[in-house]
Amino acid sequence: MSETSTQPGTPRATAYTPTDRTVPTRSKERAAYDRELVHAILDEGYVCHLGFVRDGAPVVLPTLYGRVSDRLYVHGSTGSRPLRMTGQADPGLPVCLTVTHVDGLVLARSAFHHSINYRSVVVHGIAHQVTDPDEKRAALDALVDHVVPGRSLDSRPANGKELAATAVIRLDLDEVSAKLRTGGPNDEPEDLALPHWTGVLPLAKGFDAPVPADDLAPGIGLPDYLAAL
Amino acid sequence: MSETSTQPGTPRATAYTPTDRTVPTRSKERAAYDRELVHAILDEGYVCHLGFVRDGAPVVLPTLYGRVSDRLYVHGSTGSRPLRMTGQADPGLPVCLTVTHVDGLVLARSAFHHSINYRSVVVHGIAHQVTDPDEKRAALDALVDHVVPGRSLDSRPANGKELAATAVIRLDLDEVSAKLRTGGPNDEPEDLALPHWTGVLPLAKGFDAPVPADDLAPGIGLPDYLAAL
Repeated sequence: MSETSTQPGTPRATAYTPTDRTVPTRSKERAAYDRELVHAILDEGYVCHLGFVRDGAPVVLPTLYGRVSDRLYVHGSTGSRPLRMTGQADPGLPVCLTVTHVDGLVLARSAFHHSINYRSVVVHGIAHQVTDPDEKRAALDALVDHVVPGRSLDSRPANGKELAATAVIRLDLDEVSAKLRTGGPNDEPEDLALPHWTGVLPLAKGFDAPVPADDLAPGIGLPDYLAAL
Repeated sequence: MSETSTQPGTPRATAYTPTDRTVPTRSKERAAYDRELVHAILDEGYVCHLGFVRDGAPVVLPTLYGRVSDRLYVHGSTGSRPLRMTGQADPGLPVCLTVTHVDGLVLARSAFHHSINYRSVVVHGIAHQVTDPDEKRAALDALVDHVVPGRSLDSRPANGKELAATAVIRLDLDEVSAKLRTGGPNDEPEDLALPHWTGVLPLAKGFDAPVPADDLAPGIGLPDYLAAL
Protein backbone atom coordinates (compact mmCIF):
# COMPACT_ATOMS: atom_id res chain seq x y z
CA MET A 1 0.00 0.00 0.00
CA SER A 2 1.37 3.40 -0.90
CA GLU A 3 1.42 6.30 1.52
CA THR A 4 -1.33 8.03 -0.41
CA SER A 5 -3.74 5.16 -0.01
CA THR A 6 -4.09 6.00 3.68
CA GLN A 7 -5.35 9.51 2.94
CA PRO A 8 -9.06 10.26 3.35
CA GLY A 9 -11.05 10.02 0.16
CA THR A 10 -8.83 7.42 -1.48
CA PRO A 11 -10.78 4.25 -2.29
CA ARG A 12 -9.53 1.26 -0.37
CA ALA A 13 -9.74 -2.43 -1.00
CA THR A 14 -12.07 -4.26 1.35
CA ALA A 15 -9.34 -6.74 2.23
CA TYR A 16 -5.60 -6.77 2.80
CA THR A 17 -3.52 -8.65 0.27
CA PRO A 18 -2.06 -11.88 1.68
CA THR A 19 1.73 -12.26 1.56
CA ASP A 20 4.13 -15.06 2.36
CA ARG A 21 4.32 -13.77 5.94
CA THR A 22 0.56 -13.47 6.46
CA VAL A 23 -0.52 -16.84 5.07
CA PRO A 24 -0.18 -19.39 7.88
CA THR A 25 1.48 -22.71 7.18
CA ARG A 26 -1.22 -24.40 9.28
CA SER A 27 -4.97 -23.87 9.86
CA LYS A 28 -5.26 -21.67 6.78
CA GLU A 29 -9.06 -21.69 7.20
CA ARG A 30 -8.64 -19.60 10.35
CA ALA A 31 -6.89 -16.75 8.55
CA ALA A 32 -8.82 -13.68 7.37
CA TYR A 33 -7.86 -10.49 5.56
CA ASP A 34 -11.10 -8.50 5.65
CA ARG A 35 -10.30 -4.89 6.49
CA GLU A 36 -13.37 -4.26 8.68
CA LEU A 37 -12.75 -7.43 10.65
CA VAL A 38 -9.09 -6.53 11.18
CA HIS A 39 -10.04 -3.02 12.34
CA ALA A 40 -12.71 -4.37 14.71
CA ILE A 41 -10.24 -6.75 16.36
CA LEU A 42 -7.67 -3.97 16.69
CA ASP A 43 -10.18 -1.50 18.10
CA GLU A 44 -11.38 -3.91 20.78
CA GLY A 45 -7.91 -4.42 22.25
CA TYR A 46 -6.13 -2.32 24.87
CA VAL A 47 -2.61 -3.64 24.62
CA CYS A 48 -0.64 -4.82 21.64
CA HIS A 49 2.55 -6.87 21.74
CA LEU A 50 5.22 -5.06 19.78
CA GLY A 51 8.12 -7.15 18.53
CA PHE A 52 11.43 -5.84 17.28
CA VAL A 53 14.99 -7.10 16.96
CA ARG A 54 17.69 -5.83 19.29
CA ASP A 55 21.28 -7.10 18.99
CA GLY A 56 20.00 -9.94 16.82
CA ALA A 57 17.49 -11.20 19.39
CA PRO A 58 13.72 -10.70 19.48
CA VAL A 59 12.09 -8.40 22.04
CA VAL A 60 8.32 -8.43 22.67
CA LEU A 61 6.85 -5.64 24.80
CA PRO A 62 3.23 -4.90 25.71
CA THR A 63 2.19 -1.35 24.92
CA LEU A 64 -0.85 0.83 24.26
CA TYR A 65 -1.76 1.70 20.70
CA GLY A 66 -4.28 3.66 18.69
CA ARG A 67 -5.63 3.44 15.14
CA VAL A 68 -6.35 6.19 12.64
CA SER A 69 -7.76 4.68 9.46
CA ASP A 70 -5.06 2.37 8.09
CA ARG A 71 -2.35 3.44 10.48
CA LEU A 72 -1.47 2.30 13.97
CA TYR A 73 0.33 4.49 16.46
CA VAL A 74 2.36 3.50 19.49
CA HIS A 75 3.77 6.00 21.94
CA GLY A 76 6.26 6.03 24.72
CA SER A 77 8.91 8.02 26.46
CA THR A 78 11.57 9.37 24.15
CA GLY A 79 13.96 7.40 26.38
CA SER A 80 12.36 3.98 25.95
CA ARG A 81 14.20 1.41 23.87
CA PRO A 82 11.92 0.77 20.86
CA LEU A 83 11.14 4.47 20.53
CA ARG A 84 14.84 5.37 20.63
CA MET A 85 15.63 2.62 18.15
CA THR A 86 12.92 3.83 15.78
CA GLY A 87 14.27 7.37 15.97
CA GLN A 88 17.76 6.20 15.13
CA ALA A 89 16.76 3.65 12.52
CA ASP A 90 16.78 4.82 8.93
CA PRO A 91 14.66 3.95 6.94
CA GLY A 92 12.70 2.70 9.95
CA LEU A 93 12.53 -0.22 12.35
CA PRO A 94 11.12 -3.61 11.27
CA VAL A 95 8.41 -4.56 13.74
CA CYS A 96 5.65 -7.10 14.21
CA LEU A 97 2.62 -5.86 16.16
CA THR A 98 0.13 -8.40 17.45
CA VAL A 99 -3.23 -8.01 19.21
CA THR A 100 -5.02 -11.03 20.66
CA HIS A 101 -8.39 -11.52 22.36
CA VAL A 102 -9.00 -14.74 24.28
CA ASP A 103 -12.72 -15.45 24.02
CA GLY A 104 -13.08 -18.90 25.55
CA LEU A 105 -11.41 -22.07 26.76
CA VAL A 106 -12.19 -25.07 24.57
CA LEU A 107 -12.33 -28.33 26.53
CA ALA A 108 -12.31 -31.39 24.31
CA ARG A 109 -12.59 -35.02 25.31
CA SER A 110 -9.01 -35.58 24.16
CA ALA A 111 -6.06 -33.63 25.55
CA PHE A 112 -4.88 -33.12 21.96
CA HIS A 113 -7.97 -31.12 20.92
CA HIS A 114 -7.94 -28.69 23.84
CA SER A 115 -7.74 -25.18 22.50
CA ILE A 116 -8.90 -21.64 22.99
CA ASN A 117 -11.30 -19.48 21.04
CA TYR A 118 -9.47 -16.33 20.06
CA ARG A 119 -9.26 -13.48 17.58
CA SER A 120 -5.86 -12.05 16.72
CA VAL A 121 -4.33 -9.60 14.28
CA VAL A 122 -0.68 -9.68 13.25
CA VAL A 123 0.84 -6.65 11.50
CA HIS A 124 4.24 -6.79 9.81
CA GLY A 125 5.93 -3.61 8.72
CA ILE A 126 8.40 -0.82 9.21
CA ALA A 127 7.80 1.60 12.08
CA HIS A 128 8.67 5.26 11.61
CA GLN A 129 8.84 8.01 14.17
CA VAL A 130 6.18 10.67 13.71
CA THR A 131 7.77 14.10 13.31
CA ASP A 132 4.84 16.15 11.97
CA PRO A 133 3.30 18.00 14.97
CA ASP A 134 -0.28 17.72 13.69
CA GLU A 135 0.04 14.00 13.04
CA LYS A 136 1.60 13.57 16.48
CA ARG A 137 -1.29 15.37 18.21
CA ALA A 138 -3.86 13.36 16.25
CA ALA A 139 -2.03 10.14 17.13
CA LEU A 140 -2.03 10.99 20.84
CA ASP A 141 -5.76 11.74 20.68
CA ALA A 142 -6.26 8.37 19.00
CA LEU A 143 -4.26 6.66 21.75
CA VAL A 144 -6.45 8.21 24.48
CA ASP A 145 -9.66 7.53 22.54
CA HIS A 146 -8.53 3.94 22.06
CA VAL A 147 -8.58 3.50 25.86
CA VAL A 148 -12.06 5.06 26.09
CA PRO A 149 -13.81 6.44 22.98
CA GLY A 150 -14.46 10.15 23.38
CA ARG A 151 -12.06 10.60 26.28
CA SER A 152 -9.63 12.92 24.45
CA LEU A 153 -12.36 15.60 24.46
CA ASP A 154 -12.79 15.22 28.24
CA SER A 155 -9.18 15.59 29.39
CA ARG A 156 -6.46 18.20 29.25
CA PRO A 157 -4.52 17.93 25.96
CA ALA A 158 -0.77 17.43 26.10
CA ASN A 159 1.23 20.60 26.62
CA GLY A 160 4.51 21.44 24.94
CA LYS A 161 6.67 19.80 27.59
CA GLU A 162 4.62 16.59 27.49
CA LEU A 163 4.69 16.51 23.69
CA ALA A 164 8.48 16.89 23.75
CA ALA A 165 8.83 14.02 26.22
CA THR A 166 6.66 11.69 24.14
CA ALA A 167 7.74 9.83 21.05
CA VAL A 168 5.14 8.39 18.68
CA ILE A 169 5.76 5.75 16.06
CA ARG A 170 3.60 4.96 13.06
CA LEU A 171 2.96 1.59 11.46
CA ASP A 172 0.92 1.36 8.26
CA LEU A 173 -1.65 -1.42 8.04
CA ASP A 174 -0.54 -3.10 4.86
CA GLU A 175 0.90 -6.56 5.48
CA VAL A 176 -1.71 -7.69 7.98
CA SER A 177 -3.89 -10.69 8.75
CA ALA A 178 -6.44 -11.82 11.29
CA LYS A 179 -6.74 -15.30 12.71
CA LEU A 180 -9.77 -16.66 14.51
CA ARG A 181 -11.04 -19.76 16.22
CA THR A 182 -14.70 -19.97 17.21
CA GLY A 183 -17.14 -22.68 18.18
CA GLY A 184 -16.96 -25.86 20.18
CA PRO A 185 -14.38 -28.65 20.45
CA ASN A 186 -13.44 -30.76 17.43
CA ASP A 187 -13.21 -34.21 18.96
CA GLU A 188 -12.33 -37.33 17.02
CA PRO A 189 -15.34 -39.56 16.15
CA GLU A 190 -13.90 -42.41 18.21
CA ASP A 191 -13.78 -40.17 21.32
CA LEU A 192 -17.43 -39.10 21.35
CA ALA A 193 -18.47 -41.77 23.84
CA LEU A 194 -15.84 -40.81 26.41
CA PRO A 195 -17.32 -39.67 29.75
CA HIS A 196 -15.56 -36.27 29.94
CA TRP A 197 -17.53 -33.01 30.03
CA THR A 198 -16.81 -31.10 26.84
CA GLY A 199 -17.64 -27.60 25.72
CA VAL A 200 -16.47 -24.01 25.97
CA LEU A 201 -15.88 -21.77 28.99
CA PRO A 202 -16.43 -18.21 27.67
CA LEU A 203 -14.27 -15.54 29.28
CA ALA A 204 -16.16 -12.67 30.87
CA LYS A 205 -15.85 -9.33 29.06
CA GLY A 206 -16.64 -5.82 30.24
CA PHE A 207 -15.90 -3.86 33.38
CA ASP A 208 -16.40 -3.96 37.11
CA ALA A 209 -17.64 -0.85 38.93
CA PRO A 210 -15.49 2.27 38.30
CA VAL A 211 -13.10 3.26 41.10
CA PRO A 212 -12.97 7.08 41.44
CA ALA A 213 -9.58 8.59 42.25
CA ASP A 214 -9.00 9.43 45.94
CA ASP A 215 -8.69 13.09 45.08
CA LEU A 216 -11.72 13.32 42.79
CA ALA A 217 -13.70 16.41 43.82
CA PRO A 218 -17.19 15.72 45.18
CA GLY A 219 -19.84 16.53 42.62
CA ILE A 220 -17.94 15.22 39.58
CA GLY A 221 -20.15 12.35 38.50
CA LEU A 222 -19.40 9.55 36.06
CA PRO A 223 -19.76 10.91 32.52
CA ASP A 224 -22.25 9.25 30.16
CA TYR A 225 -19.56 7.81 27.88
CA LEU A 226 -18.14 5.88 30.84
CA ALA A 227 -21.48 4.84 32.30
CA ALA A 228 -22.32 3.37 28.87
CA LEU A 229 -19.40 0.94 29.19
CA MET B 1 20.69 -20.47 35.72
CA SER B 2 22.15 -23.90 35.07
CA GLU B 3 20.08 -26.81 33.83
CA THR B 4 20.35 -28.53 37.18
CA SER B 5 18.74 -25.67 39.06
CA THR B 6 15.41 -26.62 37.50
CA GLN B 7 15.53 -30.10 39.00
CA PRO B 8 13.36 -30.86 42.02
CA GLY B 9 15.16 -30.62 45.32
CA THR B 10 17.69 -28.05 44.20
CA PRO B 11 17.45 -24.86 46.28
CA ARG B 12 16.38 -21.88 44.19
CA ALA B 13 16.84 -18.19 44.66
CA THR B 14 13.65 -16.34 45.51
CA ALA B 15 14.26 -13.89 42.68
CA TYR B 16 15.58 -13.87 39.13
CA THR B 17 18.81 -12.00 38.54
CA PRO B 18 18.31 -8.77 36.57
CA THR B 19 20.27 -8.43 33.33
CA ASP B 20 20.77 -5.64 30.84
CA ARG B 21 17.75 -6.92 28.91
CA THR B 22 15.44 -7.20 31.92
CA VAL B 23 16.13 -3.82 33.55
CA PRO B 24 13.87 -1.27 31.84
CA THR B 25 15.32 2.04 30.75
CA ARG B 26 12.16 3.76 32.05
CA SER B 27 9.82 3.26 35.03
CA LYS B 28 12.35 1.04 36.82
CA GLU B 29 10.12 1.06 39.91
CA ARG B 30 7.57 -1.01 38.00
CA ALA B 31 9.99 -3.89 37.37
CA ALA B 32 10.05 -6.94 39.63
CA TYR B 33 12.09 -10.14 39.72
CA ASP B 34 10.41 -12.12 42.50
CA ARG B 35 10.04 -15.73 41.40
CA GLU B 36 6.64 -16.34 43.00
CA LEU B 37 5.24 -13.16 41.49
CA VAL B 38 6.57 -14.09 38.05
CA HIS B 39 5.09 -17.58 38.31
CA ALA B 40 1.72 -16.20 39.46
CA ILE B 41 1.50 -13.84 36.49
CA LEU B 42 2.47 -16.63 34.11
CA ASP B 43 0.00 -19.09 35.62
CA GLU B 44 -2.92 -16.66 35.33
CA GLY B 45 -2.48 -16.17 31.58
CA TYR B 46 -3.90 -18.27 28.76
CA VAL B 47 -1.96 -16.96 25.80
CA CYS B 48 1.63 -15.79 25.54
CA HIS B 49 3.09 -13.76 22.71
CA LEU B 50 6.11 -15.59 21.34
CA GLY B 51 8.63 -13.50 19.42
CA PHE B 52 11.35 -14.84 17.17
CA VAL B 53 13.38 -13.61 14.23
CA ARG B 54 12.67 -14.87 10.74
CA ASP B 55 14.70 -13.63 7.77
CA GLY B 56 15.97 -10.79 9.94
CA ALA B 57 12.50 -9.49 10.85
CA PRO B 58 10.56 -9.97 14.08
CA VAL B 59 7.53 -12.27 14.25
CA VAL B 60 5.13 -12.23 17.22
CA LEU B 61 2.54 -15.00 17.46
CA PRO B 62 -0.03 -15.73 20.16
CA THR B 63 0.13 -19.26 21.48
CA LEU B 64 -0.80 -21.43 24.46
CA TYR B 65 1.85 -22.31 27.01
CA GLY B 66 2.38 -24.27 30.18
CA ARG B 67 4.79 -24.04 33.11
CA VAL B 68 6.61 -26.80 34.97
CA SER B 69 8.68 -25.30 37.76
CA ASP B 70 11.21 -23.00 36.08
CA ARG B 71 10.46 -24.07 32.54
CA LEU B 72 7.86 -22.92 30.07
CA TYR B 73 6.57 -25.12 27.27
CA VAL B 74 4.92 -24.12 24.00
CA HIS B 75 3.49 -26.63 21.58
CA GLY B 76 2.29 -26.65 18.05
CA SER B 77 2.06 -28.64 14.90
CA THR B 78 5.37 -30.01 13.71
CA GLY B 79 4.62 -28.04 10.52
CA SER B 80 4.21 -24.61 12.13
CA ARG B 81 6.96 -22.05 11.54
CA PRO B 82 8.44 -21.43 15.00
CA LEU B 83 8.34 -25.11 15.84
CA ARG B 84 10.07 -26.02 12.58
CA MET B 85 12.62 -23.29 13.10
CA THR B 86 13.35 -24.50 16.63
CA GLY B 87 13.85 -28.02 15.38
CA GLN B 88 16.30 -26.86 12.74
CA ALA B 89 18.10 -24.33 14.90
CA ASP B 90 21.22 -25.51 16.62
CA PRO B 91 21.91 -24.65 19.44
CA GLY B 92 18.33 -23.41 19.69
CA LEU B 93 16.17 -20.48 18.64
CA PRO B 94 16.41 -17.08 20.39
CA VAL B 95 12.93 -16.11 21.54
CA CYS B 96 11.18 -13.58 23.70
CA LEU B 97 8.00 -14.78 25.39
CA THR B 98 5.65 -12.22 26.92
CA VAL B 99 2.47 -12.60 28.99
CA THR B 100 0.33 -9.57 29.83
CA HIS B 101 -2.80 -9.06 31.92
CA VAL B 102 -4.76 -5.84 31.50
CA ASP B 103 -6.36 -5.11 34.88
CA GLY B 104 -7.86 -1.66 34.45
CA LEU B 105 -8.06 1.51 32.39
CA VAL B 106 -6.52 4.51 34.14
CA LEU B 107 -8.29 7.76 33.28
CA ALA B 108 -6.34 10.83 34.36
CA ARG B 109 -7.33 14.48 34.10
CA SER B 110 -4.57 15.01 31.54
CA ALA B 111 -4.34 13.05 28.30
CA PHE B 112 -0.64 12.53 29.04
CA HIS B 113 -1.25 10.53 32.24
CA HIS B 114 -3.79 8.12 30.79
CA SER B 115 -2.53 4.59 31.26
CA ILE B 116 -3.55 1.05 32.07
CA ASN B 117 -3.03 -1.10 35.11
CA TYR B 118 -1.30 -4.26 33.99
CA ARG B 119 0.95 -7.12 35.02
CA SER B 120 3.36 -8.56 32.50
CA VAL B 121 6.23 -11.02 32.35
CA VAL B 122 8.92 -10.96 29.69
CA VAL B 123 11.18 -14.00 29.24
CA HIS B 124 14.32 -13.88 27.09
CA GLY B 125 16.08 -17.08 26.17
CA ILE B 126 16.87 -19.86 23.78
CA ALA B 127 14.07 -22.27 22.91
CA HIS B 128 14.89 -25.94 22.38
CA GLN B 129 12.74 -28.69 20.98
CA VAL B 130 11.80 -31.34 23.52
CA THR B 131 12.92 -34.76 22.36
CA ASP B 132 12.64 -36.80 25.56
CA PRO B 133 9.27 -38.64 25.44
CA ASP B 134 8.63 -38.36 29.19
CA GLU B 135 9.36 -34.63 29.21
CA LYS B 136 7.13 -34.19 26.17
CA ARG B 137 4.21 -35.97 27.83
CA ALA B 138 4.65 -33.96 31.03
CA ALA B 139 4.80 -30.76 29.00
CA LEU B 140 1.57 -31.60 27.18
CA ASP B 141 -0.13 -32.33 30.52
CA ALA B 142 1.11 -28.96 31.77
CA LEU B 143 -0.30 -27.26 28.68
CA VAL B 144 -3.75 -28.80 29.25
CA ASP B 145 -3.64 -28.10 32.99
CA HIS B 146 -2.65 -24.52 32.24
CA VAL B 147 -5.98 -24.07 30.42
CA VAL B 148 -7.88 -25.61 33.35
CA PRO B 149 -6.05 -26.99 36.40
CA GLY B 150 -6.74 -30.69 36.78
CA ARG B 151 -8.08 -31.14 33.27
CA SER B 152 -5.31 -33.46 32.05
CA LEU B 153 -6.66 -36.14 34.43
CA ASP B 154 -10.16 -35.76 32.95
CA SER B 155 -9.38 -36.14 29.24
CA ARG B 156 -7.95 -38.76 26.93
CA PRO B 157 -4.12 -38.51 26.86
CA ALA B 158 -2.41 -38.01 23.51
CA ASN B 159 -1.88 -41.20 21.52
CA GLY B 160 1.19 -42.06 19.48
CA LYS B 161 -0.07 -40.43 16.31
CA GLU B 162 -0.96 -37.21 18.14
CA LEU B 163 2.38 -37.14 19.94
CA ALA B 164 4.18 -37.53 16.63
CA ALA B 165 2.21 -34.66 15.09
CA THR B 166 2.96 -32.32 18.00
CA ALA B 167 6.19 -30.48 18.57
CA VAL B 168 6.98 -29.03 22.00
CA ILE B 169 9.58 -26.40 22.74
CA ARG B 170 11.14 -25.62 26.10
CA LEU B 171 12.23 -22.24 27.43
CA ASP B 172 14.00 -22.01 30.77
CA LEU B 173 12.95 -19.23 33.12
CA ASP B 174 16.26 -17.56 33.71
CA GLU B 175 16.44 -14.11 32.13
CA VAL B 176 12.99 -12.96 33.18
CA SER B 177 11.26 -9.96 34.69
CA ALA B 178 7.81 -8.81 35.66
CA LYS B 179 6.44 -5.32 35.22
CA LEU B 180 3.38 -3.94 36.96
CA ARG B 181 1.28 -0.83 37.23
CA THR B 182 -1.36 -0.62 39.94
CA GLY B 183 -3.40 2.12 41.59
CA GLY B 184 -5.04 5.32 40.46
CA PRO B 185 -4.00 8.07 38.07
CA ASN B 186 -0.91 10.20 38.73
CA ASP B 187 -2.12 13.64 37.76
CA GLU B 188 0.03 16.76 37.95
CA PRO B 189 -0.69 18.98 40.98
CA GLU B 190 -1.77 21.83 38.71
CA ASP B 191 -4.41 19.60 37.09
CA LEU B 192 -6.25 18.55 40.26
CA ALA B 193 -8.92 21.26 39.93
CA LEU B 194 -9.86 20.27 36.38
CA PRO B 195 -13.49 19.14 36.03
CA HIS B 196 -12.82 15.73 34.41
CA TRP B 197 -13.87 12.48 36.10
CA THR B 198 -10.75 10.56 37.05
CA GLY B 199 -10.20 7.05 38.31
CA VAL B 200 -9.85 3.45 37.19
CA LEU B 201 -12.19 1.23 35.18
CA PRO B 202 -11.34 -2.33 36.32
CA LEU B 203 -11.68 -5.00 33.65
CA ALA B 204 -14.01 -7.86 34.53
CA LYS B 205 -12.30 -11.21 35.16
CA GLY B 206 -13.73 -14.70 35.27
CA PHE B 207 -16.11 -16.67 33.09
CA ASP B 208 -19.59 -16.55 31.69
CA ALA B 209 -21.80 -19.65 31.88
CA PRO B 210 -20.21 -22.78 30.33
CA VAL B 211 -21.46 -23.78 26.87
CA PRO B 212 -21.71 -27.60 26.60
CA ALA B 213 -20.75 -29.12 23.25
CA ASP B 214 -23.68 -29.94 20.95
CA ASP B 215 -22.81 -33.61 21.10
CA LEU B 216 -22.31 -33.84 24.87
CA ALA B 217 -24.20 -36.89 26.10
CA PRO B 218 -27.08 -36.18 28.48
CA GLY B 219 -26.13 -37.00 32.04
CA ILE B 220 -22.57 -35.71 31.88
CA GLY B 221 -22.69 -32.82 34.31
CA LEU B 222 -20.18 -30.04 34.84
CA PRO B 223 -17.28 -31.40 36.92
CA ASP B 224 -16.45 -29.74 40.23
CA TYR B 225 -13.13 -28.32 39.00
CA LEU B 226 -15.02 -26.41 36.31
CA ALA B 227 -17.93 -25.36 38.50
CA ALA B 228 -15.36 -23.90 40.92
CA LEU B 229 -14.19 -21.47 38.22
